[in-house]
Amino acid sequence: MIDFPHINDICQTTPSRVVMLVVDGLGGAVHPERGRSELEVARTPNLDRLASRSACGLTTPVLPGITPGSGPGHLSLFGYDPVKYLIGRGVLEALGIDVEMKEGDVAARGNFCTVDGEGKLTDRRAGRIASQESIPLCNMLDQIEVSGAEVRIFPVRDYRFVALFRGQGLSDRVTETDPQVVGVAPRRVEALDSRAERTAAVANAFVDGAWEVLGGRERANMVLLRGFSQMPQIPNFGKTYRLNPAAIASYPMYRGLTRLVGMRVIPTGPTFKDEVETLSSHFQEHDFFYIHYKPADAAGEDGDFDAKVRALEGLDPFIPSILDLKPDVLVVAGDHATPSIMAAHSWHPVPLLIHSRLTLGEGVEAFHERACASGSIGRIPATQVMLLTLAHAGKLAKFGP
Amino acid sequence: MIDFPHINDICQTTPSRVVMLVVDGLGGAVHPERGRSELEVARTPNLDRLASRSACGLTTPVLPGITPGSGPGHLSLFGYDPVKYLIGRGVLEALGIDVEMKEGDVAARGNFCTVDGEGKLTDRRAGRIASQESIPLCNMLDQIEVSGAEVRIFPVRDYRFVALFRGQGLSDRVTETDPQVVGVAPRRVEALDSRAERTAAVANAFVDGAWEVLGGRERANMVLLRGFSQMPQIPNFGKTYRLNPAAIASYPMYRGLTRLVGMRVIPTGPTFKDEVETLSSHFQEHDFFYIHYKPADAAGEDGDFDAKVRALEGLDPFIPSILDLKPDVLVVAGDHATPSIMAAHSWHPVPLLIHSRLTLGEGVEAFHERACASGSIGRIPATQVMLLTLAHAGKLAKFGP
Repeated sequence: MIDFPHINDICQTTPSRVVMLVVDGLGGAVHPERGRSELEVARTPNLDRLASRSACGLTTPVLPGITPGSGPGHLSLFGYDPVKYLIGRGVLEALGIDVEMKEGDVAARGNFCTVDGEGKLTDRRAGRIASQESIPLCNMLDQIEVSGAEVRIFPVRDYRFVALFRGQGLSDRVTETDPQVVGVAPRRVEALDSRAERTAAVANAFVDGAWEVLGGRERANMVLLRGFSQMPQIPNFGKTYRLNPAAIASYPMYRGLTRLVGMRVIPTGPTFKDEVETLSSHFQEHDFFYIHYKPADAAGEDGDFDAKVRALEGLDPFIPSILDLKPDVLVVAGDHATPSIMAAHSWHPVPLLIHSRLTLGEGVEAFHERACASGSIGRIPATQVMLLTLAHAGKLAKFGP
Repeated sequence: MIDFPHINDICQTTPSRVVMLVVDGLGGAVHPERGRSELEVARTPNLDRLASRSACGLTTPVLPGITPGSGPGHLSLFGYDPVKYLIGRGVLEALGIDVEMKEGDVAARGNFCTVDGEGKLTDRRAGRIASQESIPLCNMLDQIEVSGAEVRIFPVRDYRFVALFRGQGLSDRVTETDPQVVGVAPRRVEALDSRAERTAAVANAFVDGAWEVLGGRERANMVLLRGFSQMPQIPNFGKTYRLNPAAIASYPMYRGLTRLVGMRVIPTGPTFKDEVETLSSHFQEHDFFYIHYKPADAAGEDGDFDAKVRALEGLDPFIPSILDLKPDVLVVAGDHATPSIMAAHSWHPVPLLIHSRLTLGEGVEAFHERACASGSIGRIPATQVMLLTLAHAGKLAKFGP
């Protein structure tokens, strides 16, 4: 979208099919005692064989040193400037539980908290109450009526919920109520500019209503609201690239993200096996498929090196099934690294492979960080992956005479 | 021009001489059965020896995945942002036959076609009639007079010609007449905005005139017009870099391109041997020489791996002759890759070497894609080649105190 302003002029619709497999948290880092990364330790014969017949490289999700969340990490791979197209926390939380947002809606991340007799916070997470306890409370909050907007409350998990504000002239330029410390009262919502004053009033009215409903309880007797945000204006993925794209993801957030950019989200089951079966049964219907593999990120976030190795090894047997569908281009990429030695997302470059009939003679010895660093693609911003992908699929005409 | 806004402040004129040898379609791709690229297979001992004593790297002509035409590919190497400075097809065709264009002129690619009794296309290229047959027809078209502009017709080759429209207030924002299929009538020229209405009227009047002149013929009885375009406003190469530049190219298009950026075009013969002799005999007159080698691209476009290998081997013996002139800097670069496995231009990064007295201790083992990938320059946008070239020639002062 940003990297090449004439993209729409040179994109051409063709019968070729692309599968972009995004392995969440694909990249890792070298374990100090083992001297190797998770991908280097993992036995992944299918990925390695594929890498030996693919154009390989490393992607930088945002910039060296910048650690992306899943939103920016995915948007980059789809070709969107992740700095320009910011998705707020409230929106991401709402998308993550399949809440349909409309233009102008404001979403906030909410959570139950506990305050004392003076209204001062004693527990910002209300003892992390379970969903069993919080869902009835959410239903009570959902009944609150305020003037000037409709307020809807959707349970997320445990003590967390989404507050959705719908009405004319709302704005996300308001402050959060969480003071980040205990011993003080929750803050009031304040407008950051004059057009946000209505929204601040609506949000404060909701908080007052919540106190009326919950105030008599011992714990979870108040709420905190953070990350007020509206849907970004984001170019349509299919229109931009002249593709008919589909997304297959068992985790709701990735369905929400891809719906946001205009992909058709195909319902699927909870496992990657389900996702691959969904890919197979819908393979004739689209020319671009995004398919998401989650376990590598989860294990990395847990700081469990061996679990991440196992998660990568668990992906490997599915590669032949995907290749059996005979996609014209298979991309294996990651939205960001999640090194287990950090137990968190990181800024590290992420292995990339692009496999097409043009890459059969090139490749590297294995699919891991060190090998991909010497691949033919080199190191590129993740925002350029779509350009290379479309080029390999024969979907990009020559630029200029 | 874009990559460093202060370029003009730090450029300094010095006696040092630069030769930039642009090998058209220099880069290739690995042949799946041979496991090597054209440059890897070619025996090029002189280029390899030079690479072992040069700063080497890979250039990206536009962006990963973007395949440039020769226009953008060359403009990048000259330091112009190829996305900003677009040269239209009509202009390039006109430049290609040494037609002098003025500011405001509109050039279109024309070709003879054949229509049936109802005016419907039966052959969009009029049986590819030879120049012998088309040149007299071009002379007839050149006599057509229309109100509002002067129209000049210049034969290109076979069934192709250039139509040049000269007059006040013309615009290139008009549609083409080629419907791209037979069985329908040629389209009328339509204005894409209100300022182009005069141009559309002039072009349609010319087409009507062509029908009057040619309509009685069996074949080549009509014309098609495409790629209407005007000269871009482009900064002068010599003024920008404080150089006195010359261009040596046996193919007209490259003469036109370099004239467009303000280089002196030195007449030369049809072969690369002629070009090198021209370089030698004018070597004291300029401080920058662009010299163009075409055969590698032609062989790549034909999809002939072995012919491209031979074309690269055919260049190699000229390297010592160029070095004998003792240029302070010799650059060997390509405007884009033309892999024979694709039989077309491509987006692949292109080998680059910069040889100067400063590079004698560095280098890579051979001049090909894989070796250059590990060269000291790394991978750079082609728009930065001029900066490095001028730096090696001692023509760039320090930036900032």
